[in-house]
Amino acid sequence: MNSVPMSRLRIDLDERGYDIRIGCGLLSDPDSWSGLPRAAQALIVSNTTVAPLYAQRLQEALSPHHERVLQVVLPDGEAHKDWPTLNLIFDALLEQECDRRTVLYALGGGVVGDITGFAAACYMRGVPFVQVPTTLLAQVDSSVGGKTAINHPRGKNMIGAFYQPRRVICDLDVLDTLPPRELSAGLAEVIKYGPIADPAFLDWIEQNLDALRALDKAALSHAVRRSCEIKAQVVAADEREADLRAILNFGHTFGHAIEAGLGYGEWLHGEAVGCGMVMAAELSARLGMVEADFPRRLRALVERAGLPVVAPSLPIEQWLALMRLDKKALAGEIRFVLIDGLGQAVQRTAPEALVREVIQACSA
Amino acid sequence: MNSVPMSRLRIDLDERGYDIRIGCGLLSDPDSWSGLPRAAQALIVSNTTVAPLYAQRLQEALSPHHERVLQVVLPDGEAHKDWPTLNLIFDALLEQECDRRTVLYALGGGVVGDITGFAAACYMRGVPFVQVPTTLLAQVDSSVGGKTAINHPRGKNMIGAFYQPRRVICDLDVLDTLPPRELSAGLAEVIKYGPIADPAFLDWIEQNLDALRALDKAALSHAVRRSCEIKAQVVAADEREADLRAILNFGHTFGHAIEAGLGYGEWLHGEAVGCGMVMAAELSARLGMVEADFPRRLRALVERAGLPVVAPSLPIEQWLALMRLDKKALAGEIRFVLIDGLGQAVQRTAPEALVREVIQACSA
Repeated sequence: MNSVPMSRLRIDLDERGYDIRIGCGLLSDPDSWSGLPRAAQALIVSNTTVAPLYAQRLQEALSPHHERVLQVVLPDGEAHKDWPTLNLIFDALLEQECDRRTVLYALGGGVVGDITGFAAACYMRGVPFVQVPTTLLAQVDSSVGGKTAINHPRGKNMIGAFYQPRRVICDLDVLDTLPPRELSAGLAEVIKYGPIADPAFLDWIEQNLDALRALDKAALSHAVRRSCEIKAQVVAADEREADLRAILNFGHTFGHAIEAGLGYGEWLHGEAVGCGMVMAAELSARLGMVEADFPRRLRALVERAGLPVVAPSLPIEQWLALMRLDKKALAGEIRFVLIDGLGQAVQRTAPEALVREVIQACSA
Repeated sequence: MNSVPMSRLRIDLDERGYDIRIGCGLLSDPDSWSGLPRAAQALIVSNTTVAPLYAQRLQEALSPHHERVLQVVLPDGEAHKDWPTLNLIFDALLEQECDRRTVLYALGGGVVGDITGFAAACYMRGVPFVQVPTTLLAQVDSSVGGKTAINHPRGKNMIGAFYQPRRVICDLDVLDTLPPRELSAGLAEVIKYGPIADPAFLDWIEQNLDALRALDKAALSHAVRRSCEIKAQVVAADEREADLRAILNFGHTFGHAIEAGLGYGEWLHGEAVGCGMVMAAELSARLGMVEADFPRRLRALVERAGLPVVAPSLPIEQWLALMRLDKKALAGEIRFVLIDGLGQAVQRTAPEALVREVIQACSA
C-alpha cells in the first residue's frame, strides 16, 4: 500500500504560529479542516489546471465549516503572477460581499499560493488564509513561511508581504497528477536544503532520488517533512529576512535572473533554481569556500533530478543588471547566497570578474 | 509671534512604536529627520498640489541623510487612490534600483499618506516610511496608526495593510497653504474625537473653532496633539482593529457610502465624515443611546466648521448596498459606530427601518 501516516510540524512564530500537516488523503480528511478560524464565507483560489482536478473535493470537505464556499479560478503560470490576476481575487471577494472574516484557501502551486497569500494580506487589510499546496515545490518551500508576492515587470516577487497562513495541508496524493517536469522543479528546492543546512539529507536525496521521481509516498513524506523542518527552523529564527532567512535563497539570485531574462514562465521557477544552485556552487568553489568537488556533485544530482544544468544564453550585462535588482542587493551591490562549507550558507558579495567567469562557464 | 514649541507624542506599539512631532518649522528643522533608519536612498512621494510647495524644502532637509533623494509626484485626489497610481511608486523605485532599505517619505494629505504607506508595506515585502502630513485631516487622523490602503471601484480602502510609519512629522506651518475647504474637512476628524472619547475636548473645540479656522498655531497645536493622543491610546490598545479601534470610524459608515455613491473626490473624505457623524448621532439618539439634544449640538458644530450637514440624495437601496460593503459589516449585517453616552462609542447593528428613517431625515 503506497500510503503513509500523517505527520505534523509546527512553525513556531508565537501568535502567528501554525501547523504543517503532511500525509496521504488529507484533502478529503475532515480533520484537516477543523479548528480553523470560523467564518460564514470561504473562497477557494485555484487555477485552470488544478481546479478541475481537486476544487470540487476541497469544496465538499469545506462545506461543513462555512455557509458559503466560493471559488475563483485564475489563469495558470508564472506569467500571470501579476496585478490583473490578483485583482480577480479582490473582484470575486467584493462581488460576493465577503467580509473581513472570510477564509481564503490557496489550492495550487507556488504561484497560486503566493498570490492568494498576498490577496489575504491585503483584502480589508488582512483576512485568514490556508495553504493547500498541490505541487512538490509548493509543499517543500513556497507554502511555508509566509512569503507572499506578485511580480513586477522589472523583477520577481517585488510587491508582496510577509503574511503567515493559518495552516498548511500537504496531501501527498495530489502529487500523483503532477507532470514530471513540475516534479523535477520541486526536487530542485528539496535538493537546496542539503547544501545550506544538512549534508546527511543531501546524501539521503542522492540515495532516494529514483524513489522520489517514482512518487513513492514514504520517500516523498520524508523529503517534504525534512524540507519543511529546515525551513521552519530558519523562518522561526528570522521571519522577515533580517539576515539568516536569505540562505533559503540559495540558487535564487542566478535563478531569478534566468526567469526574468527569458520572460516569466519560459523556465519553471524550480528549473531556474536548480541551474542557479549549480552556478552558486561554482562561485562558492571558485571563492575557496567549499570543496572543489562540490559543484560537480551538485550538478550531477540536479541533472539526475531531470533539471537543466546549463544556463540559457543571455548577454552578460543583462545578467548583471537583473541580479542588481534582486531584493538581496544593497546599494547596487549584488549579494549571493554561497555555500560556506557543506551544510552551511552565507549571504555575501563576490568580485564581479569572478561572477562573469561563472556565468560564462555555466552558460550555453 | 504665531509659533509654538515642538511637542512629542509616542505611539506605544513595542518594536513598532514611533514618535509624532507637532510644531512649527519642522520641515526645515534638521532634528526632524535625524535618528531615522539609515539608507543610501530615499523617495519623497507627493502630489501635483503639494510638491511645488514643499518637496524642494523636504529634499534639502533630507539630503544630509541619504546619498540620493528621489521624488515621485502623483496625481492629486481621492479618485487616484488606486492601483495605477500606486504602481507609479513601484515603477519609480524599480527604475532607480532602490533596495530594501530605501526610506519612503509621504509628503501630502491622507491620500498620499495611505498610498505611500501601502507602497512601503509591499515594496520588497516592506521598507521603512515616514509620514509628513500636510493637511489637518492627515495630521490629526490618517497619518497616525498605520492604516494604509488603496480604493477598489466597489469600496473604499478595501486593499491595504496595517503598517506603521517610523515617525510622523506634523509641521503646523504647512497648514497656512491649505485651502479653507480642506481645513474644514480636517476639522471633521478633530470634532470626531470629542463624542467618541472626550466631552471636554468637544467643549474646547466649540470654544476655539474660530481660532482653528483662523489657523491660530496654539489652537492648532492643541487640536492636533489632543486628537493624536486619543488616537494613540486607541491604536495602542487595538492596533489591528479587533474591536475597539473601530470607534475611530464614527461617521465613516455613512460617510464612505456618500463618497462611493457620489464617486470618489466629489465630496472630500472629511466632508463625508462630518455629515456621516451627524447621521450617526441621529441614529444614536433614535436608539436612545445619547441625549436627544446631541444630534442638534453636533450638527451646529459641524456646520460652523464649514462642512455640509445635509446628505446628498442617493437612492435608499444604494445607501444600504454601499454600507453592507463596509469593512465593519459581518455576514451582510451593517455595523455602525454609535455614541453610547457622550464620550463613549460602540460598534453595533441597528434596525434597518430606523436606518432608513435616519437617511431620509438627513438627506436633501
